Amino acid sequence: MQNIPTLDDIKKTAELVNKYVHRTPIFTSKTINKMAGCELFFKCENFQKIGAFKIRGAVSAVFALSKEEIAKGIVTHSSGNHAAAVAYAADLRGGKAYIVMPRTAPQIKKDAVGDYGGEIIFCEPTLESREKVCGEVIEKTGAVFLHPFNDYRIIRGQATAALEILEQVENLDYIIPPVGGGGLASGTVLSAQYISPETKVIAAEPKGADDAYRSLRDGKIYPSLNPKTIADGLLTSLGEKTFGILQKYLNEIITVNEDSIIQAMRIVWERMKIIIEPSSAVTLAAVMENKEKFSGKRVCLIFTGGNVDLDKLPWL
Amino acid sequence: MQNIPTLDDIKKTAELVNKYVHRTPIFTSKTINKMAGCELFFKCENFQKIGAFKIRGAVSAVFALSKEEIAKGIVTHSSGNHAAAVAYAADLRGGKAYIVMPRTAPQIKKDAVGDYGGEIIFCEPTLESREKVCGEVIEKTGAVFLHPFNDYRIIRGQATAALEILEQVENLDYIIPPVGGGGLASGTVLSAQYISPETKVIAAEPKGADDAYRSLRDGKIYPSLNPKTIADGLLTSLGEKTFGILQKYLNEIITVNEDSIIQAMRIVWERMKIIIEPSSAVTLAAVMENKEKFSGKRVCLIFTGGNVDLDKLPWL
Repeated sequence: MQNIPTLDDIKKTAELVNKYVHRTPIFTSKTINKMAGCELFFKCENFQKIGAFKIRGAVSAVFALSKEEIAKGIVTHSSGNHAAAVAYAADLRGGKAYIVMPRTAPQIKKDAVGDYGGEIIFCEPTLESREKVCGEVIEKTGAVFLHPFNDYRIIRGQATAALEILEQVENLDYIIPPVGGGGLASGTVLSAQYISPETKVIAAEPKGADDAYRSLRDGKIYPSLNPKTIADGLLTSLGEKTFGILQKYLNEIITVNEDSIIQAMRIVWERMKIIIEPSSAVTLAAVMENKEKFSGKRVCLIFTGGNVDLDKLPWL
Repeated sequence: MQNIPTLDDIKKTAELVNKYVHRTPIFTSKTINKMAGCELFFKCENFQKIGAFKIRGAVSAVFALSKEEIAKGIVTHSSGNHAAAVAYAADLRGGKAYIVMPRTAPQIKKDAVGDYGGEIIFCEPTLESREKVCGEVIEKTGAVFLHPFNDYRIIRGQATAALEILEQVENLDYIIPPVGGGGLASGTVLSAQYISPETKVIAAEPKGADDAYRSLRDGKIYPSLNPKTIADGLLTSLGEKTFGILQKYLNEIITVNEDSIIQAMRIVWERMKIIIEPSSAVTLAAVMENKEKFSGKRVCLIFTGGNVDLDKLPWL
């Protein structure tokens, strides 16, 4: 599929994806509503398979491949949730996943890929090494490369999260996904635009990795150079496909401070008793830093994942 | 009410309690089922108001008081979830709660009582000081004393958790609550006995605080002297009311090691992305230490609460 996903594309993808992923619940918290001054709805993709929304896009993309492609395998690079998602989705089709990952990746991420039957190929933690090793795997195996976000098959998979949200909660004023590479944010603006155009989508981004904010402001994609944030799922820059969609439909990007992210994460752990990763907390941080803007509104935050190294909590 | 709660008592209590507390969800986890070798259902009272099941008993007992009694206030001693529960329940009726608490109690527990409008009166961390200070409050204010568990009004409130479980999950072979003072365990055996006598109730207790195990074994209540466990909700000994009920109806107590508790807690945090306190994890530890016993069975574990000091995690 070479075009921006239509509503029909997203609905068909949802039919497929729903066979393999959870319909995650919407949680609410009166205490946090009181703190924030608005009515919040939390889409709990931290409870999703592999602990993150990334499985939606991975299932969508992997099931779009032919049997011949699957037979040769799938290769991707990621040290995060996309890695586990591709390993899991490839396994669903009986295919092999080659995950190129920096040697420096946390053990927990390596274990997750292994648990789902993926094969890890280590690279050095540089862009050059990553691309070189990916190229070598492709040359050797003929495997198909799956980009983590700059791919309409991935984007229409991520769009199924907002599709669910709009079935689960009525009359939303805002949906707030975090933005890294823009796969989820793109999917979210598409679903909202098609189904509930009166619902505004605002993306939340760490100030220390604000390349998407600057890219949309200036109308050109800035690379994410030396990002500094604990939100480890939001380190990448936009791709031309996600940039195109966000430029057209996204209402705004709000950037937030590191302190706010840590504080928001802790509020959720303490008050809601659920585990979210820092990238999820960026959304609540955006509300907490802008209470006037959201005052009295109905706002859905996408908690993108819950994969946290429990030995290294950001407030310790 | 001077008698062991009947099914009718428990059902009426549920009608009242349901107005003020959450009907908490049952979570499941295929990953943990695979690790445990049985089908597990997790009753998530960690998502309950005040973060623990204790609010059920507190609402039941506080709403059984007369207007005159409420006007004079309620006094209890607790450094844990019962303290917050009584403060919350008293506030629902516009009454004052006096919470006698050792000076050494964690700040987070003091804050919780304050948040719900309770007044903390400090004592020394000894039984004598606690009773002396409680007595002084009663003398000065005329407040009614509410025991944390050795009270049928409390027990029938805690029984509403198992009432819900048996509506939410069919054909359970076992329900496993943890046991400290025995309020929840007593309520659980009563509801199970009345509604689903084929469902066995087994209580889980830390080996380092195994007074309930020894008490039921020997037919007399042993005091909990110098308990050593991170399960800080399970430090107390049984009372004569909870002892009587458990002696009659409880199938068994399984005691577990501290390592198993910490490991079980971490498994739940990592795999389910929910926050449970150590006392909750004792139930999963009981299954993990006895896989053969539970092999292939349908087992509901009561996750009693999620109030954890996030600065002091047991695996760090």
